[in-house]
Amino acid sequence: MEISDQDRAERSVKALLQDDAATQGLGMQVLAVEPGFTRLKMCVTQHMLNGFSTCHGGYIFTLGDSAFGVACNSFNQMAVASSASIEFLAPAYLNDELIAEANVQSQGRKTGLYDVVITNQNNKTIALFRGRSHRIGKPLFDESEPAQ
Amino acid sequence: MEISDQDRAERSVKALLQDDAATQGLGMQVLAVEPGFTRLKMCVTQHMLNGFSTCHGGYIFTLGDSAFGVACNSFNQMAVASSASIEFLAPAYLNDELIAEANVQSQGRKTGLYDVVITNQNNKTIALFRGRSHRIGKPLFDESEPAQ
Amino acid sequence: MEISDQDRAERSVKALLQDDAATQGLGMQVLAVEPGFTRLKMCVTQHMLNGFSTCHGGYIFTLGDSAFGVACNSFNQMAVASSASIEFLAPAYLNDELIAEANVQSQGRKTGLYDVVITNQNNKTIALFRGRSHRIGKPLFDESEPAQ
Amino acid sequence: MEISDQDRAERSVKALLQDDAATQGLGMQVLAVEPGFTRLKMCVTQHMLNGFSTCHGGYIFTLGDSAFGVACNSFNQMAVASSASIEFLAPAYLNDELIAEANVQSQGRKTGLYDVVITNQNNKTIALFRGRSHRIGKPLFDESEPAQ
Repeated sequence: MEISDQDRAERSVKALLQDDAATQGLGMQVLAVEPGFTRLKMCVTQHMLNGFSTCHGGYIFTLGDSAFGVACNSFNQMAVASSASIEFLAPAYLNDELIAEANVQSQGRKTGLYDVVITNQNNKTIALFRGRSHRIGKPLFDESEPAQ
Repeated sequence: MEISDQDRAERSVKALLQDDAATQGLGMQVLAVEPGFTRLKMCVTQHMLNGFSTCHGGYIFTLGDSAFGVACNSFNQMAVASSASIEFLAPAYLNDELIAEANVQSQGRKTGLYDVVITNQNNKTIALFRGRSHRIGKPLFDESEPAQ
Repeated sequence: MEISDQDRAERSVKALLQDDAATQGLGMQVLAVEPGFTRLKMCVTQHMLNGFSTCHGGYIFTLGDSAFGVACNSFNQMAVASSASIEFLAPAYLNDELIAEANVQSQGRKTGLYDVVITNQNNKTIALFRGRSHRIGKPLFDESEPAQ
Repeated sequence: MEISDQDRAERSVKALLQDDAATQGLGMQVLAVEPGFTRLKMCVTQHMLNGFSTCHGGYIFTLGDSAFGVACNSFNQMAVASSASIEFLAPAYLNDELIAEANVQSQGRKTGLYDVVITNQNNKTIALFRGRSHRIGKPLFDESEPAQ
């Protein structure tokens, strides 16, 4: 039985995230998934703040990296990050609700390029993230099994 | 009274980190500080793991970003990250003891470039981080005050 | 007498490029200019080819860098590149007509971020370029003088 | 007959550059080659200057990219650039003699990471270049043939 691209994306992401302690521990929510695309949400909490009372850049990156990871794993082919870059355009503050939208820019047989835009609740751009992925030659779930 | 470059570096970093919930919350330890240089340590804990049972790239980045932040703030001039990039060369696993060494590559009046090498307990290189900083025109502490 | 943003952009770029031997020597044409935006064209010539008979990545970068330079200098404030990155997505071949479109992503008082998309005559994306600029505190032309 | 790593590097680079119009046209000289390493030289000529009378960043990048290309092709496995980034630390001027030293940082079965430092005749660092390479599964020359 064939499954649709959209089904494949949703089941891939479910398989990817079910044991992801990092993404869960930071309270990230998956708002939308399509092949090569996702939208994630994360709220800035007290423990994410640096000494300047703004969100540590590492947590902003982590949100972008998770969105990138979801998007590049949405084809039922396990993929890992080989490199990434981030532009910090504006600070994020306590209780900000950050949204990360990841879009595939290029996906070859092995390597992919994904851009992520991170905005806050006022639609201000906080950061631009760009990630390069590498497929490792395994599926995330068995497509011959029915969805659970 | 003049203070030495080394004193300035140590007092800058103390001022920077004393209220940094993110760096403290991840259990990072500052092993060494010099002007433009630092060595930090972070252990990979359960909550840093992703769905592949390796350390989420965001936490590796966060370690690199903290080391970068310490090094670029070691001159008693508040500096923030404007952008950064990271190369993921090998995975990190649960209980790995990661060391990040940050070194200034270039520091002008306003902008700086810092490279960070992240290795594990077997001296294997896990990631290379490169950060660009921007000074915002304020000191981190008052040099006319005696150290506490 | 006030000049419009569009006039300022056009006169800035004219001042920028009139003595630019590199851009002229590569036969680049400015197809469009607006504040923070430009579209440039460059044909791939024999002397741009590498040993694989494709356009040397350096010339693709140079096109992107020139488009970035035009866009970030379109505000009559001299700006230079502090860093840049490029993703090579597909090769370019002899006689390809490459188009580079540069768009401002962020422009502060001093620093800016610009994205450039480079496509070929079949609208295939050849490369994505991202540049960071830094204003050096001088105008490109005297706005009190009439345009020539 | 086995050939040494050093022989392989020298013959790979000879095969790579013999038809490279771009590298030859810019007058680049290969000063040294080892497996994963090279040192190239390029003089800044009139036609490389931009409107600010400094070397166009594109030509500095091109030098770095060529050095990267030589280093990542020194194993007799054809490799192409997938992405690169450059930090412009100081301007280069007419008649400057630029040296680019490329060093492998990581080389897997398929992908590699190379750092290039570009200095001028006074040993001042002009730029830092970082390139990611991708092997395409072909040799550059036939190792069973004797060297010419």
